[in-house]
Amino acid sequence: MPVEPPAVSRFPVPKLEDLPEDIREMIEAVQEKSGFIPNVFLALAHRPAEFRAFFAGHDALMDKSEGLSKAEREMIVVATSAVNDCLYCVIAHGAILRIRAKNPLIADQLATNPWKADLSDRERLIVGFALQMVDESGSVTDEDIQELRDGGLTDDEIWDIGAITAFFAMSNRLANLTSMRPNDEFYAMAR
Amino acid sequence: MPVEPPAVSRFPVPKLEDLPEDIREMIEAVQEKSGFIPNVFLALAHRPAEFRAFFAGHDALMDKSEGLSKAEREMIVVATSAVNDCLYCVIAHGAILRIRAKNPLIADQLATNPWKADLSDRERLIVGFALQMVDESGSVTDEDIQELRDGGLTDDEIWDIGAITAFFAMSNRLANLTSMRPNDEFYAMAR
Amino acid sequence: MPVEPPAVSRFPVPKLEDLPEDIREMIEAVQEKSGFIPNVFLALAHRPAEFRAFFAGHDALMDKSEGLSKAEREMIVVATSAVNDCLYCVIAHGAILRIRAKNPLIADQLATNPWKADLSDRERLIVGFALQMVDESGSVTDEDIQELRDGGLTDDEIWDIGAITAFFAMSNRLANLTSMRPNDEFYAMAR
Amino acid sequence: MPVEPPAVSRFPVPKLEDLPEDIREMIEAVQEKSGFIPNVFLALAHRPAEFRAFFAGHDALMDKSEGLSKAEREMIVVATSAVNDCLYCVIAHGAILRIRAKNPLIADQLATNPWKADLSDRERLIVGFALQMVDESGSVTDEDIQELRDGGLTDDEIWDIGAITAFFAMSNRLANLTSMRPNDEFYAMAR
Amino acid sequence: MPVEPPAVSRFPVPKLEDLPEDIREMIEAVQEKSGFIPNVFLALAHRPAEFRAFFAGHDALMDKSEGLSKAEREMIVVATSAVNDCLYCVIAHGAILRIRAKNPLIADQLATNPWKADLSDRERLIVGFALQMVDESGSVTDEDIQELRDGGLTDDEIWDIGAITAFFAMSNRLANLTSMRPNDEFYAMAR
Amino acid sequence: MPVEPPAVSRFPVPKLEDLPEDIREMIEAVQEKSGFIPNVFLALAHRPAEFRAFFAGHDALMDKSEGLSKAEREMIVVATSAVNDCLYCVIAHGAILRIRAKNPLIADQLATNPWKADLSDRERLIVGFALQMVDESGSVTDEDIQELRDGGLTDDEIWDIGAITAFFAMSNRLANLTSMRPNDEFYAMAR
Repeated sequence: MPVEPPAVSRFPVPKLEDLPEDIREMIEAVQEKSGFIPNVFLALAHRPAEFRAFFAGHDALMDKSEGLSKAEREMIVVATSAVNDCLYCVIAHGAILRIRAKNPLIADQLATNPWKADLSDRERLIVGFALQMVDESGSVTDEDIQELRDGGLTDDEIWDIGAITAFFAMSNRLANLTSMRPNDEFYAMAR
Repeated sequence: MPVEPPAVSRFPVPKLEDLPEDIREMIEAVQEKSGFIPNVFLALAHRPAEFRAFFAGHDALMDKSEGLSKAEREMIVVATSAVNDCLYCVIAHGAILRIRAKNPLIADQLATNPWKADLSDRERLIVGFALQMVDESGSVTDEDIQELRDGGLTDDEIWDIGAITAFFAMSNRLANLTSMRPNDEFYAMAR
Repeated sequence: MPVEPPAVSRFPVPKLEDLPEDIREMIEAVQEKSGFIPNVFLALAHRPAEFRAFFAGHDALMDKSEGLSKAEREMIVVATSAVNDCLYCVIAHGAILRIRAKNPLIADQLATNPWKADLSDRERLIVGFALQMVDESGSVTDEDIQELRDGGLTDDEIWDIGAITAFFAMSNRLANLTSMRPNDEFYAMAR
Repeated sequence: MPVEPPAVSRFPVPKLEDLPEDIREMIEAVQEKSGFIPNVFLALAHRPAEFRAFFAGHDALMDKSEGLSKAEREMIVVATSAVNDCLYCVIAHGAILRIRAKNPLIADQLATNPWKADLSDRERLIVGFALQMVDESGSVTDEDIQELRDGGLTDDEIWDIGAITAFFAMSNRLANLTSMRPNDEFYAMAR
Repeated sequence: MPVEPPAVSRFPVPKLEDLPEDIREMIEAVQEKSGFIPNVFLALAHRPAEFRAFFAGHDALMDKSEGLSKAEREMIVVATSAVNDCLYCVIAHGAILRIRAKNPLIADQLATNPWKADLSDRERLIVGFALQMVDESGSVTDEDIQELRDGGLTDDEIWDIGAITAFFAMSNRLANLTSMRPNDEFYAMAR
Repeated sequence: MPVEPPAVSRFPVPKLEDLPEDIREMIEAVQEKSGFIPNVFLALAHRPAEFRAFFAGHDALMDKSEGLSKAEREMIVVATSAVNDCLYCVIAHGAILRIRAKNPLIADQLATNPWKADLSDRERLIVGFALQMVDESGSVTDEDIQELRDGGLTDDEIWDIGAITAFFAMSNRLANLTSMRPNDEFYAMAR
C-alpha cells in the first residue's frame, strides 16, 4: 500500500488565480526563474498580509552580499534550521547553499553536525554565533559580541548573523506550523 | 558607585531626524499616542528595511481581533517571550497585556508559571499550544492540531497562535541580539 | 463567565483560631506589620511542626545583614525561584526585593533574564553562583568556590548564597506542591 | 601516590566541645546510637541556627510512620537525591533504606534506575510523584494530584511525598555546597 | 585560501598492505563491490580485534531481512545517527537507505525530522521505538514493549530495533571519536 | 504481598543445553570461575551471532591492561553506565571495579557523582573524557583531544576511553532493551 505524500500545507493553499495581483506576480516571477514554485510561497499565500511582510523581511536579509556573502547567509539558515527540526528550510536552503557555495557537501555537513563541516575559521565563527543565537540568545553578553569582533567580524555582520537566525526562528516555526512540504526538486539540486 | 543602566541597544541607535520619513512619522505617531517612544522602534530603526518588514508583520498579527482577542494575542507573546528569556518583550507586552485584559495580575502570572495563571479553559488551550510551538514545533502533529479544533479553536485561530509564537521567536532573538532595554515606563503600567 | 481564582492552597487551610498559640501569634504579628497575611503562613500552618522548622530556617538565613545585604539575599530568592517556576516566591519576594533594594525594576529583571538585570559586579557574582547552585549543585568544584573568593566574596557569604538557594529549592517545591497563591497585594507593591 | 580523601566539608568543621550544648548533646546521642557521627551533623554544625532548623524539619518529616512507612520515606530520599547528584544523601540514606526496608538491593536499584527497582504498585506511585516533584514541581496540576488519590494515596501521604522531596532538594544542595563526605561506614551497612 | 578537508580519521590509518590478511581481504571485497573503500573500514582497521568484532556485530544485525526489511533497518540507523550528530553514519547509511528503500527523499527526511518523513504506520512505529531507545532506553517499560506488539511487531523485530539502535549508539561514538569522514561518494548516491 | 522479582530478561532466555557448544563452554567457564553465571550471558545468548560479536568486542577492550589499567577501564564503565541509567552495568561492573581497584567506595562514588569521587588527576581526566563521549561525542574537537594529550594520555589510551564508552553505550541499551537483571551476588561483592 503506497504511502500518500503529505500536502503542501496542512492549512488551505489558495489557487494562484485567487491571489492578490502583487503576490501572484511575485510567485510567477519565481516560477519562471526556478522552473517550479517553492511551496513556501503557496503555503504562506494563505495570509497575504503576512506573506508580504515575510518576504520583505526575507529579502532584506538574504538578498544582499555586503559583509556576509550569500553563501555565508545560507550556512546560517541551514545550521539553525536543523536545530529547529525544520524539514522545509533544511532541504530548500540546503539546495540554495550548495549552489551559492559551489560545494555539494556543505549543506548535509552543516545540517548533520556543524562541528564536522568543512568550514574556514571565519565560517566557523559565523556558524558558532548563529548556533548560540538559536537556543540561548538570552545569555549572549557584550563579551560574546566582543569576541566576534576580535575574530574579525564587523558589527554589521554580527547583526546580520543574529537577524538571519532570528528570521529563520520565525520561518522554521511557520513551516512546522503548516507542516510545509519541501518540493521534491530541492533534494537532488546541485549535488 | 552607581550602576550605569545599559543603553537602548548595543548597536547604534539613529537619531529621529536622520531616519527615513516614513519611519520617523510612524515613530512620532507612536510617541504621541503613548507619551514615550518604546525602545524597540529606536533599536530596530538602525536597519530601515528590516524595520518596515518587522512592523508590517507585527501589525498583521497583533492589530486585529477577529478570532483571537487582542488580550489573547498578548497572552501568547508574554508566555512565549518568558520561555525565550526576552526581557524587552516580557516587560513591554506584559504592560500591554495588563491593559488589554484589564487584569493587573495576568502578565506576571504568565511570565512566571503559565500553569498557575488565572486562565479560562480556552485561554489555557491557546497558551498551551503556544508553549508547544515555542520549543517543539518540529513535533507538532496533525493529531495535535485536531485536538485544538476539538477544544473549540478555529483553523484561523490555530494559525494565529502559531504565527504569533513564530513572530515573537524572531522578535525575542532580535531583542536579545541588540540587548534591547525595556523603557522604565512599562514596568508599572496598568498595575 | 468569570474565572474563579484558585484558593490559597490545594491542601486544607486552618482557621487562625484553630492554630497552636505560638503560630497564631507569629501570624498575627506579621499581619499587623504588613496589613495582610501572606498566604505562605496560612498554607504551611496545615503542618505546625513543619511550619516552625520552615520559618526558623527562613529567619536564620533571611533576617540578617552581615555579609550579604538583605537586598542581595532577596535577589538570590527571586532569580532562583524564577528558575523553579515558583509563582508565589517570585511575586512575594519580588515585592520584598523592590522594597529592600529601593529599585522598582530589579525584581522583574531578575525573574525574566538575570543576564540583563542592572547589577553591580558583586551582585552579578552572587546571582551567578545562586544560578549554578539551583540546577547544577552536584558539579560545583573547589575551583568554583575559589573563583568566588577571588571575586571578593567571603566564605560566610558563599555559604549564605548556597544555603539561601538551597532553602528556596525547598520553599519553591512546597509552594508548587500546595499550588500556593500569592496575595494580590504583592504584585503592585513598591513599583 | 595515594589520593588524599576529601575532608568532611569544604567549610570549617567545629570541634564538639566548641558547640552549643543542645547541639553537642544531640550529636553525642546520635554517636552513641550509631557508633559514629554522621558527617552531616559536623558539617551543618558550622551554623547552629541553621542546624537546629534543619534537624527540626528533618525529624518532622522522617521520624514518623503514619501514612507513609519509614521505608517509603527513605525511598523518596534515595530516588530524588540521585537525581540531584548528592553523594552524601544517596550513600547515607541508602544505608538507612536498606535497614528500614530490610532489603539489601533496593537502595542501589532506586539510585541507579527507579524504573527497574523491585517496587510494589504503591511504592511505584510514591516514587513516581517524588520524581515529578524533584524537577518539574511547577507543572504539577490538580489532575496529577487527583491521580495519586485515585491510586490510593491520602492527601496527607501526598503532602509528605512532596514535602520530603522538597526538604531533600534543600538537603542535597547543602551537601553539594559543602562537598559533604559520606562516612565510609555507610557504604557497606546492611548489605 | 582553500579549506583543507579533514583526514579519514584523527587516529592513524593503516596501509592496506600492513593489515592482517582477513581484514585486508574483507576490505578488498567491499572495494570491489562498491568501487571505493568506505572510510569506516580504514578508520577501524587501526584496531584489528575491535574491527573484527565490530563487523561481526554489524553483519549479524544488518545483513538479514527476516522480520525487519533491510530498508527498515537502515531507517533506524539514519534516524538514530542523526540524534547522535554522527556525520559518517547519516551520510553513508543515508545513501544505503536510499538504495534499499528505492526512495531518494527518505534519508534526508529521517535525518532532519522523522515526524515529517513519508513513513507507513509500521515504519513510524519502528522509528518511534528506535528514537525512544536512543536517548531514554532506561525508562522503556514492559508496557512500551506491549504497545509495539499491539502495533503488529514481533518480539524478534522489537529486539532488532533495540539492538540496531544499540549497535549504532556504539558506532556513532566511534565515528565521532575518530572524527571519521564520510567518503564524498556517499553524498550524491541514489538521489 | 511480596513483590515478584523481574526475570533475567524480558526476552526468552535459552537453556544452557540448547546453546551452541562454543557459547555453552564459554558460559560454563565463567560459571566455574565466578561461582555463578552473570545474567548478561544468559540474556544475550538468545542471539548467538550477536552474543559472539558482543563478547569479542568486550574482551578486546576490557581484557587488556596496557595503557589504561583494568581498574581505569572499569571506572569508565561505571561512570558512563550511570549516565545511561543502566542498572545491570552499574551493579555488575561496580562489583568488578571494587575488585580491580581494591577500593570498596569508588564504584558508588562514580555512579552517584563522579565529581565527588576519590580520583587521581589522571583518573579524573579519563572519567571526564568518558563523560563527554557518552552524551556529546558529536562536539568532541581536535582541541579536546590535544588537551587529553597535554594531560599525559597517549593516543592509544584516548582511543580506549572513547571505544569503551562507545561499547557500553551499546551494552547499556541492550541491558535496558532486555530489562536485564543484575544477579543479586554483585551487590555486596568486595565491599
